[in-house]
Amino acid sequence: MKAQLAISAADVHSAAALIAGVAVRTPLLEYSALNERVGGRVLVKFEGAQRTGSFKFRGAYNRLARIKGDAKAAGIVAWSSGNHAQGVAAAAGLLAMPATVVMPADAPAMKIANTRALGAEVVLYDRATESREDIARALAAKRGAVLVPSFDDPFIIAGQGTIGIEILEQVRDAGAQLGQVLVCCGGGGLVAGIATAIKESSPAAEIFCVEPEAFDDTARSLASGRRESVAKGAVSICDALQAPSPGELTLPINRALLSGGLVVSDEQVRAAMRFAFATMKLVIEPGGAVALAAALHGLAPPSRGATVVVVSGANVDADVYASIIAG
Amino acid sequence: MKAQLAISAADVHSAAALIAGVAVRTPLLEYSALNERVGGRVLVKFEGAQRTGSFKFRGAYNRLARIKGDAKAAGIVAWSSGNHAQGVAAAAGLLAMPATVVMPADAPAMKIANTRALGAEVVLYDRATESREDIARALAAKRGAVLVPSFDDPFIIAGQGTIGIEILEQVRDAGAQLGQVLVCCGGGGLVAGIATAIKESSPAAEIFCVEPEAFDDTARSLASGRRESVAKGAVSICDALQAPSPGELTLPINRALLSGGLVVSDEQVRAAMRFAFATMKLVIEPGGAVALAAALHGLAPPSRGATVVVVSGANVDADVYASIIAG
Repeated sequence: MKAQLAISAADVHSAAALIAGVAVRTPLLEYSALNERVGGRVLVKFEGAQRTGSFKFRGAYNRLARIKGDAKAAGIVAWSSGNHAQGVAAAAGLLAMPATVVMPADAPAMKIANTRALGAEVVLYDRATESREDIARALAAKRGAVLVPSFDDPFIIAGQGTIGIEILEQVRDAGAQLGQVLVCCGGGGLVAGIATAIKESSPAAEIFCVEPEAFDDTARSLASGRRESVAKGAVSICDALQAPSPGELTLPINRALLSGGLVVSDEQVRAAMRFAFATMKLVIEPGGAVALAAALHGLAPPSRGATVVVVSGANVDADVYASIIAG
Repeated sequence: MKAQLAISAADVHSAAALIAGVAVRTPLLEYSALNERVGGRVLVKFEGAQRTGSFKFRGAYNRLARIKGDAKAAGIVAWSSGNHAQGVAAAAGLLAMPATVVMPADAPAMKIANTRALGAEVVLYDRATESREDIARALAAKRGAVLVPSFDDPFIIAGQGTIGIEILEQVRDAGAQLGQVLVCCGGGGLVAGIATAIKESSPAAEIFCVEPEAFDDTARSLASGRRESVAKGAVSICDALQAPSPGELTLPINRALLSGGLVVSDEQVRAAMRFAFATMKLVIEPGGAVALAAALHGLAPPSRGATVVVVSGANVDADVYASIIAG
């Protein structure tokens, strides 16, 4: 007997209807130089052009817009290293809800500043000694606010999945046949949502998640069949992909729908960011570049159609970016 | 009696048919943060995603594809500071024609390297002591090759104008009303082509060219009615926009169709590049950022509809870019 998954394709379509006209329908870009380099047709879904510079606005808006009445007035509390923080802050601003976000003190300065500029209250914590979950849960309980997780929530997963619906439409508009989709993975909400949307109408398309090598918990969990965790003290330049283990809701979806998990090194990520700068003319943050890195380094099995690479975000501090593109 | 202009809208439509499926139909992007900053709806035509990272491929392909027979075998000669060079080299490669490009020795290293990588022969010259025109004309005469100017040629102007056709379609798809279009200007070929395409079907739309302040020859020529030149020794970070005076073919078109010329400082260009990095997540080269700079600094008169900003190119060396975004 198959266990029920947390969301269905219908939930993604519901999210798409809710965010239409609010979220950006981001472009699917094609570069002949990238096709030649990879040796096949590659289409790049650029979520850097999304509100707040990452895909996170989609799920945040889909979650917050469903909070009504007294709960809406009490607002929301979230924790995030930065992209979910900005997505939640922007959605809360549009919906006129108070928002508080618990962020690590060492998050990229741009992400903290943008979250504040979008109107959210930011509570900083020390990643080494404090628990963001405990801080956020205590705040939410005190205020009667709704806790908005960054990935392990059906509305969040469905909201991120709207990218999958756009990919299906845009691949068709490009006259291409969808072969595989490469998607970055922290807690697995983005790839779970995209896979749910795409597998419904294109079951032959293969979906792979891509992680930094020190945070390969989903790749190992897909292989072992249970929720694996990262090593204590794991480090990566991909600040956005540092979830310690897959979600309780996301892993079953990803086990059911994904073809496997790919892993890239920080150096491959840096090379992908440089390629995007020099050839694609796109700013990409480290965590947003892992899928492109996997494509550039030929880590996925051969595709029987076009490969879609999801570039999930582009919020990177200028000094970090400058040092990476300088090589 | 009105003098005949060098091209008509029909020539732009002919170019569009010729480059279809070869050139990229670049995206028209919208950012809520940019709209809020400017105080109106702004749509960004991003030619960084074009083949070779700038609009120049459009005109080059439209010119080279019309060379047939013996002339095709003899190939082409061009001169360029870098973007026309790459456009010509890419078009020549696709059409299997030999190409030689005369480039200043101090052109951005990326532009020289890319032109060579695309298969063209590069002849370097010293901007202070040598004439690129003389070198190119001598080479072309010796080889029986066709000289391909960077802007003062009807096919080049018409090819660049294909951006105008795409703008009209994409503005309509975005549900917007076109108010004004801001376009960078070196010799004036790009803006002349775009204006020709747009004024045909949207005569109320206002087109402005934008130049770096030391190279404001077109703005002054539009005001005085004759071809003005820049001062000797003029400098700007906009390496792509350093034509010394408007073209013989482009100025009459621009006098007939443009609403005026705007001028930006190098510091305004740097600020626009930083905004594009931090908020739009797009890499833009200095010359490609002048229209965005004009929009961000409110230099155009109020628009009665959406403002389209043409981002014309994104070929910038990593060290230059790093120092600009670091502020």
